[in-house]
Amino acid sequence: MAKRIKVFAPATVANVACGFDVLGFAVQEPGDEVIVTLSDTPGVRIHSIQGDNGRLPREAERNTVSISILNYLEKLGIHQGVEIDLIKKMPLGSGLGSSAASTVAGVFAINELLDKPMSVMDLLPFAMEGERIACGSAHADNVAPCLLGGFVLVRSYDPLDVIKLPVPKNLYATIVHPHVEVQTKDARNILRKQVELNDAVKQWGNVGGLVAGLLLEDTALIGRSLQDVIIEPVRSVLIPGFDEVKQAAMDAGALGGSISGSGPSVFALSTSMEKATVIGQAMSAAFAKYSIESDVFVSPINPEGPKVIG
Amino acid sequence: MAKRIKVFAPATVANVACGFDVLGFAVQEPGDEVIVTLSDTPGVRIHSIQGDNGRLPREAERNTVSISILNYLEKLGIHQGVEIDLIKKMPLGSGLGSSAASTVAGVFAINELLDKPMSVMDLLPFAMEGERIACGSAHADNVAPCLLGGFVLVRSYDPLDVIKLPVPKNLYATIVHPHVEVQTKDARNILRKQVELNDAVKQWGNVGGLVAGLLLEDTALIGRSLQDVIIEPVRSVLIPGFDEVKQAAMDAGALGGSISGSGPSVFALSTSMEKATVIGQAMSAAFAKYSIESDVFVSPINPEGPKVIG
Repeated sequence: MAKRIKVFAPATVANVACGFDVLGFAVQEPGDEVIVTLSDTPGVRIHSIQGDNGRLPREAERNTVSISILNYLEKLGIHQGVEIDLIKKMPLGSGLGSSAASTVAGVFAINELLDKPMSVMDLLPFAMEGERIACGSAHADNVAPCLLGGFVLVRSYDPLDVIKLPVPKNLYATIVHPHVEVQTKDARNILRKQVELNDAVKQWGNVGGLVAGLLLEDTALIGRSLQDVIIEPVRSVLIPGFDEVKQAAMDAGALGGSISGSGPSVFALSTSMEKATVIGQAMSAAFAKYSIESDVFVSPINPEGPKVIG
Repeated sequence: MAKRIKVFAPATVANVACGFDVLGFAVQEPGDEVIVTLSDTPGVRIHSIQGDNGRLPREAERNTVSISILNYLEKLGIHQGVEIDLIKKMPLGSGLGSSAASTVAGVFAINELLDKPMSVMDLLPFAMEGERIACGSAHADNVAPCLLGGFVLVRSYDPLDVIKLPVPKNLYATIVHPHVEVQTKDARNILRKQVELNDAVKQWGNVGGLVAGLLLEDTALIGRSLQDVIIEPVRSVLIPGFDEVKQAAMDAGALGGSISGSGPSVFALSTSMEKATVIGQAMSAAFAKYSIESDVFVSPINPEGPKVIG
């Protein structure tokens, strides 16, 4: 049995415009890396964290990765010492599922090291528990696509019902991360608890259209369905220049786009790497008009989720 | 050119639990029949109506069938005399898309008689205009599945965007029409104009699940997705015994079910004609406990929509 493994888990775009709390997809870049090492010393410990500028807790009982691994080991009744090295390769608080990627990488890694006593789908509740600690509620719209890859629909939370959707060929994601910070909790608190029935109808029409578009491989339908009349109008006020950035993406040939997760990152979908690259340049240039620097990530949809890289 | 044609158009189940205003499907039985006859006398006239107990307007400018045909002829700039014979074969105000079936049969018939100057999809706005007269608003969730057959998603009304979804094999509908009357306008007025965001999220999770279930031919997922946390709890108070009727359907093996359109009919889906038949008996028996007589309709999903029958 290997005693040490290194796992990559990808960034994810939750909500996907119309699908607040129920839809998400994984990308190839960026992502986090976690090294998990089995130890003869009992307990689960954070050995090191790189790339977080010291912002993540080092105490095992407060870090989402170690807590998720602890819960996993407790569930299996295994008393195994574990050392964790976390290499953050994406920005925190960016709306890219940063905590989800670290947590998924961690539980995937320990499950691999122990010769897969659980199926990948069984790992989901442990990763969700990590989200509860990171964000205040056990959402699955980042951890599920991070763990399963591709587009994932969270049909229901109680009971948990997660459906992996096929990914059309020729679907590419552009994500632009502006250097402004939005706290997930703030982005959630700004939302109204009640919505107009008429708006909700438009939203679930678009959710139906997006799911149908993915399954029918109809990229035009996917594009028409990437509309959010409920969340985006409220949250986009937290992102300076959002309207212009989205318009720049559309003008550059995007099928559609919206806020990634709770922001501030903005995503767009398109039908080729070339388009996705040009769209990223246009979006970044639009942020620059507001004197906001940004990082651009361009990649195909990630069909596989986490992977062992060492 | 034929001078006379007889067309059948099917009953439809709008909303389909979670998909208020955006989803509907067509069944094989019941349905309405319309005979359209070209006439040398100018104008569009209702020649006869059977089966409505005198409740439908005979004046051409007030009847949905004649108005839709009038609009169609005006759009094409054709001055053609038309006689209409309408044979109602399903109950009015039942939640089965009665006005939609008559209207669709009418516009389909005149289009056939004139050698199809319009595509079937192009007929949709004329049938929707008929719904505006019958129900007070131009909804498409009955006329679209009636016209196109199968399951139909109305992703958007403005602009109109209608997507025909594949129908899984082995999907059967039971519809039970209790002899109580619910006015579409009353059923609409009873709804709250605002809904909880949490409920809306559940609803669009289920819409996504239902669309995915249809496309993946996953009848278990279809069943899990047939849940309506927004409309059914409000409207079901207008249907005596609704909870017991729905439970009887589930106990008899239904995948799921809900109110058909704005009621009072109740539908259930299942995976065989045998089950659909048993489910219908159980639902009818549950209504009988409330001293309510009912009609039971059992059929496969109708994949084709209207058809020429003479």
